[in-house]
Amino acid sequence: MTTYKKYRQLISTGGSTERLVFFSDAVFAIAMTLLVVELKVPQVPHEELGAALVEMIPEFGSFVLSFVVVGMIWMSHHRKFRAITGYTQTLIRINLLMLLVVASLPFTTSLLGRYGDDRLSVYVYGATIAAIGFLMSALWIYAWHKKLVSPEVTVDVFRYVLVQSFSIPGIFLLSIPVAVFAGATVAEITWIAAVPVSLIINRIYRATTA
Amino acid sequence: MTTYKKYRQLISTGGSTERLVFFSDAVFAIAMTLLVVELKVPQVPHEELGAALVEMIPEFGSFVLSFVVVGMIWMSHHRKFRAITGYTQTLIRINLLMLLVVASLPFTTSLLGRYGDDRLSVYVYGATIAAIGFLMSALWIYAWHKKLVSPEVTVDVFRYVLVQSFSIPGIFLLSIPVAVFAGATVAEITWIAAVPVSLIINRIYRATTA
Amino acid sequence: MTTYKKYRQLISTGGSTERLVFFSDAVFAIAMTLLVVELKVPQVPHEELGAALVEMIPEFGSFVLSFVVVGMIWMSHHRKFRAITGYTQTLIRINLLMLLVVASLPFTTSLLGRYGDDRLSVYVYGATIAAIGFLMSALWIYAWHKKLVSPEVTVDVFRYVLVQSFSIPGIFLLSIPVAVFAGATVAEITWIAAVPVSLIINRIYRATTA
Amino acid sequence: MTTYKKYRQLISTGGSTERLVFFSDAVFAIAMTLLVVELKVPQVPHEELGAALVEMIPEFGSFVLSFVVVGMIWMSHHRKFRAITGYTQTLIRINLLMLLVVASLPFTTSLLGRYGDDRLSVYVYGATIAAIGFLMSALWIYAWHKKLVSPEVTVDVFRYVLVQSFSIPGIFLLSIPVAVFAGATVAEITWIAAVPVSLIINRIYRATTA
Repeated sequence: MTTYKKYRQLISTGGSTERLVFFSDAVFAIAMTLLVVELKVPQVPHEELGAALVEMIPEFGSFVLSFVVVGMIWMSHHRKFRAITGYTQTLIRINLLMLLVVASLPFTTSLLGRYGDDRLSVYVYGATIAAIGFLMSALWIYAWHKKLVSPEVTVDVFRYVLVQSFSIPGIFLLSIPVAVFAGATVAEITWIAAVPVSLIINRIYRATTA
Repeated sequence: MTTYKKYRQLISTGGSTERLVFFSDAVFAIAMTLLVVELKVPQVPHEELGAALVEMIPEFGSFVLSFVVVGMIWMSHHRKFRAITGYTQTLIRINLLMLLVVASLPFTTSLLGRYGDDRLSVYVYGATIAAIGFLMSALWIYAWHKKLVSPEVTVDVFRYVLVQSFSIPGIFLLSIPVAVFAGATVAEITWIAAVPVSLIINRIYRATTA
Repeated sequence: MTTYKKYRQLISTGGSTERLVFFSDAVFAIAMTLLVVELKVPQVPHEELGAALVEMIPEFGSFVLSFVVVGMIWMSHHRKFRAITGYTQTLIRINLLMLLVVASLPFTTSLLGRYGDDRLSVYVYGATIAAIGFLMSALWIYAWHKKLVSPEVTVDVFRYVLVQSFSIPGIFLLSIPVAVFAGATVAEITWIAAVPVSLIINRIYRATTA
Repeated sequence: MTTYKKYRQLISTGGSTERLVFFSDAVFAIAMTLLVVELKVPQVPHEELGAALVEMIPEFGSFVLSFVVVGMIWMSHHRKFRAITGYTQTLIRINLLMLLVVASLPFTTSLLGRYGDDRLSVYVYGATIAAIGFLMSALWIYAWHKKLVSPEVTVDVFRYVLVQSFSIPGIFLLSIPVAVFAGATVAEITWIAAVPVSLIINRIYRATTA
């Protein structure tokens, strides 16, 4: 056996995804919790505190939106890694690329909170969430093709998970042309609809595959 | 077996709560540690440093209060997940909702530190802690009804843990009407009393169930 | 068996300290990494950048000092929890109290970086590190007396670990009277000496128990 | 057996690197996610938002560069600890020293984002990445010499991993003289080339050892 083969077998590919999952969870948890750092307590006289907090509603809204969306993406990651049982260096790289976009969310969220009525921040935010989702799908497709998933995962289950993982990034991608033609606010309403819509899409899809 | 059933069995529900617990712990730990970020070192001439630090006492107080209260909530989460041995997607969602409120604490704590003598910040803070506690109780009730708890947990133990988990959020909820009628400072004193009071309530309850 | 006894057996005390250790590690890691947040990049014209970075040396110094000291305290925690094999709610409370002080370090470190030549910040910093160390010793003594340590830990090993854990907090406690009589700078020199001094003390102690 | 020997056997050296790896992962994840905190949303009128974001491109670039480079270093750490199966207090110390430099990255990255056309920030950044890489190599050499690696790791595999771990820090170290003679921008281009170049070097080396 060559050195490189021994190296690969011992060190660079493996059966336990535990450390990879752990590291991803840490980045998800930190990015979600750091969202709050951008919420600054207003420095106003006491009698204006109520009004100042009301003015911050768009910022609270973008905090909650990002937390919920990233929470759903984390759930999707959690489900996929129940089935992914091995890894390669490329799988780790795709995962790191996805985490890079996740890690940028405190900035993107704060941009949305500050310029929520501006199309530009809607483009940036929509593209960010879509990118996370599509990188997650890429990860799932790669794992399937490299046979890194549990043997119990059939092609039907593979497809089911894949379709399911498209609903959230699909809605955010579609919101970009919506913002172009109908403005920032309408695009943001489609985001708020993302959670129930993705649940409904999954339910319909589930019925068709039953 | 349908695709959806195979998917459920392999991927979306499970026996090991390890990753869920780990992720929750990370959010708890980050939220608790981020509390300090809001404490800014005063920028004053040397001879005024002592006075500037004394002026920060309400901020230090709200840091310690939040750390202790979230610490107790973490202990309660820790105890519940000793008994919860399985999960569903809904259990994960309830848990994420609770973590959303936990993640908002650095903001709420800083608000309290800055406007501690203002009823509004008392309402916000009291409602935040109460919400965390009641979501934790909801999680416990859900887990019990869906039979996600260890079979050794009897109905008596279920009830014991439930009653125990009401003392902290109950005190914070009650502090809201206290703030309305008796002012912010009196409400805050009930919070400081929350730790010993919750210990006494648990001791009385324990005696009645012995 | 009463409800309370069943509760205790199933839920509130236990054999595996894994989650407790994990949570502590997360707080240590976050507190150590957050130290850097207080280091702000200077906003100066290009030609003054070098001088501005040189002026920040006391801040870099307090960052490195805190990282190294907390790193050593984490190593001490790591060693103790190799031997501690069970827990009670009280053990968790002592540990949380210690983590509260650890979590305050980004503030204390920044205070020291900004007012390093001021006795007050030396008192605060010295007392903070000493408090962490003594709470760690309290945790060890409690674990020993409640028989939460591995049966292989003899009374000799218990004492060896206890003495070893006093050197760092002892030096920081002693630095407070040093600051009173000899000034802030002399006290800080004793801190820099803490690392080699604690290694020497441990070596002497080891020789006497050989 | 002396007390010290019993202590060593039970407490200070060990077979499971799990907690050490976990703690390292937490510091890596936090440092990588904290990089974003330095990206501040511009406070400008709406019509200037686009231009303000374009002006931030060097800051986004240094964020992405640091995330990718630290991600590669984390991958290298991950690979090495697949082979390292035991630890000593010295191994923990080398690892902590490396994490100290990792933890400083949010500052160094922000410095580069703000003063990217300044040689000084190129020196600081290049030296920081090189230091992380060389400390990682030191860790690997130490683990090998103290026989803390899995017995299946032959001297060939040891050397393969060692050479592989030199490419990233080597490029960053070489960028310092490049900055001296050819300016900051040329040095930064060598960094962007670091990822493909390190992949090519590894491929060539792999061919020679096949």
